[in-house]
Amino acid sequence: MRKKQGLLIILDGLGDRPNKELNGMTPLESAKTPNLNFIASQGMCGNVYPISPGVRVGTDVGHLHIFGYDSNKVYPGRGPLEASSAGMELMPGDVAFRGNFGTIDDNYTVIDRRAGRIREGTKELAAAINGLVLSDGTKVLAKELTEHRVAIVLRNKDLSSKISCTDPGTAEEGKKLEMPRALDKSEAAERTARNLWEFTIRSYEILKEHPINKQRQAEGLYMANSVITRGAGQEKYIPSIKDTYKIKAACVAGDLTVGGIAELVGMDYFTHESFTGSFDTNLIGKANIAIKLLNEDKYDWVVMHVKATDLAGHDNLPLAKKEMIEKVDKIIGHILGEIDLNNCYISFTADHSTPCEARDHTGDGVPTIIAGGDVRKDGVTSAGESQFMKGSLNNLTANDIFMLQMDLLGFTEKVGA
Amino acid sequence: MRKKQGLLIILDGLGDRPNKELNGMTPLESAKTPNLNFIASQGMCGNVYPISPGVRVGTDVGHLHIFGYDSNKVYPGRGPLEASSAGMELMPGDVAFRGNFGTIDDNYTVIDRRAGRIREGTKELAAAINGLVLSDGTKVLAKELTEHRVAIVLRNKDLSSKISCTDPGTAEEGKKLEMPRALDKSEAAERTARNLWEFTIRSYEILKEHPINKQRQAEGLYMANSVITRGAGQEKYIPSIKDTYKIKAACVAGDLTVGGIAELVGMDYFTHESFTGSFDTNLIGKANIAIKLLNEDKYDWVVMHVKATDLAGHDNLPLAKKEMIEKVDKIIGHILGEIDLNNCYISFTADHSTPCEARDHTGDGVPTIIAGGDVRKDGVTSAGESQFMKGSLNNLTANDIFMLQMDLLGFTEKVGA
Repeated sequence: MRKKQGLLIILDGLGDRPNKELNGMTPLESAKTPNLNFIASQGMCGNVYPISPGVRVGTDVGHLHIFGYDSNKVYPGRGPLEASSAGMELMPGDVAFRGNFGTIDDNYTVIDRRAGRIREGTKELAAAINGLVLSDGTKVLAKELTEHRVAIVLRNKDLSSKISCTDPGTAEEGKKLEMPRALDKSEAAERTARNLWEFTIRSYEILKEHPINKQRQAEGLYMANSVITRGAGQEKYIPSIKDTYKIKAACVAGDLTVGGIAELVGMDYFTHESFTGSFDTNLIGKANIAIKLLNEDKYDWVVMHVKATDLAGHDNLPLAKKEMIEKVDKIIGHILGEIDLNNCYISFTADHSTPCEARDHTGDGVPTIIAGGDVRKDGVTSAGESQFMKGSLNNLTANDIFMLQMDLLGFTEKVGA
Repeated sequence: MRKKQGLLIILDGLGDRPNKELNGMTPLESAKTPNLNFIASQGMCGNVYPISPGVRVGTDVGHLHIFGYDSNKVYPGRGPLEASSAGMELMPGDVAFRGNFGTIDDNYTVIDRRAGRIREGTKELAAAINGLVLSDGTKVLAKELTEHRVAIVLRNKDLSSKISCTDPGTAEEGKKLEMPRALDKSEAAERTARNLWEFTIRSYEILKEHPINKQRQAEGLYMANSVITRGAGQEKYIPSIKDTYKIKAACVAGDLTVGGIAELVGMDYFTHESFTGSFDTNLIGKANIAIKLLNEDKYDWVVMHVKATDLAGHDNLPLAKKEMIEKVDKIIGHILGEIDLNNCYISFTADHSTPCEARDHTGDGVPTIIAGGDVRKDGVTSAGESQFMKGSLNNLTANDIFMLQMDLLGFTEKVGA
């Protein structure tokens, strides 16, 4: 089968709903997007469901589906993904958690669940609890992530992720850390729950005496004296995209979750400190890496991810979302000047919708384009949720869009003869 | 439930992509098709996926889905299909193979994998190995197919199709026949692998001494002294279309694969030596059989298949593909004069896309129409992939189209009461 290249641009949380601040248009409809309009005119468009209509997903699960996976079968839970994005190598049987450095008192009441959004010193604090051995021989691994976040892994035989965690909830402070409970009747779950509580107690004893916390206390800052855990998960076997489709794929992104998912499925992950995952991200830098990876012919499929559209949705900033879309559109113009659409298809999608007024992920379809070369054209000529409802991809799923791209690129196996 | 008749016309590999030689149109878009346009205007249209978006299928699997089957559940592999198309009756437990008569040397190195594309004498050669009994009592059945092809069946208790075959690959000559291996740890697989190798050795001893091969050797032709096997499979239980839907169905075709699939699912297969499976096929002859079967009221559903559009795709001949479509369109005009659309619905589809520039099957949707009588009309009035993107059947699957036809014909069971 003939092989071609493909570029996929993902705008996180792009999908939106008619917004009053934008005269009843969505940010994408309201933005000036001559380059997206051009791409739309060169192919097929539609609003596409990450999993199925009305099912809302996180960034991790949304990307798994964009990369062709069924999260029902392969999603390991958030803990292992965070651990993986922190560069920790999980072993079979490890139970991993998302952790926050937080501030608690001696009664385990949460004073601040992000330790005053601590940014410095978390590396030393994580190192202080990393390697801790619990009373039954279970080993604790800890690795700092961005800001107040830390990945925690319990390593031993016969552990289980079927437990509740210590996080009393995201809504408010003033609650006590919860004592972990087994969620099934297995001995492994009972043991893991006890281990997590022992870790919580012993890490508090270590952290509250740590010089960094003594210093924070002296400065009147919240101490990072505890690790609040959630998202327990165990690794599942995820077949590599390289093994499954014989494709070399790369992901250019600033967001650690997206990078973690990309690496988890066997893509090479390219990032840079200027890729901030926010509005000030270095878009041209991302685009130029993507162009280079394609034009040097090292990769068959390159994915470029932009996070800020999602942030604008969560913060109900429709104008900022519209402006970010316009910035990306300019970059797409730059990309179109550097690649040959006859050799490299270009696609565009989102991992989920984050409508500004909803301030959270919703189950709406996400605006999607597949274009270039010999792609069939469905007559849609401008980018927007309303316009895409008339497109030929409308109501397909993220997995469908992945398969259509793999088919265009020539990396699918024929079923039958 | 009221019963009606239906005619389905299948153009193999019809689906295509915008093509430069046709001013950016597909062969179907570019062809003059007044009769297809008329049918389109009398019903519902769309580009339909054989299985799901981006999944490409072979002719066998594509037709299984057009006939309402899920290949995941019923596809037995190519060996049994070839055996069936050769008219061999498989029994439960039989392991069937696709075979080539090929030329090997005494070291089992392949000299020519098609024995110089032998066309004559294969009946005698197959007869010479048919009935061979292997050392454990396994019986070999052999039956010639078109040109160098031959169907091979191993018959005994406790055989398995989970084995590798002797074919060293299609790419090049000069490789040795491969010794079959068990692909699982079952005794049945081990035994079948040994049987296949014994068959390979003993058939070589028989074939190399056969008068037909002595004659070929004398004429300087490649001897057909071996059978190269691939596509091991065991019959799966395929419920008959007659049992499942109480429908009498017929298939008019020249292509052996399509005929084999039709018979496999319990349709009556009508063919004629003038149905060549190529550009020179006797289209009017096919149409007249289809018309007769319908008008004599012997069948509820008649399928008429044309192969040449697929050949044109594989050979990158967009103009030939367009011309073949125009020829079929004229025949459809003839058919429309002979059947009453109020009593006989007419449908039109393809088993898969074979875009000329891709030169292979792809996972694009295939142009599809369901029309006649009281079929709802979706406003599409001309035939083409672009036009059909706006149709009401767009993005449905081949199984969906089958069920819609069965429902119109009155052969579906009500779910519930």
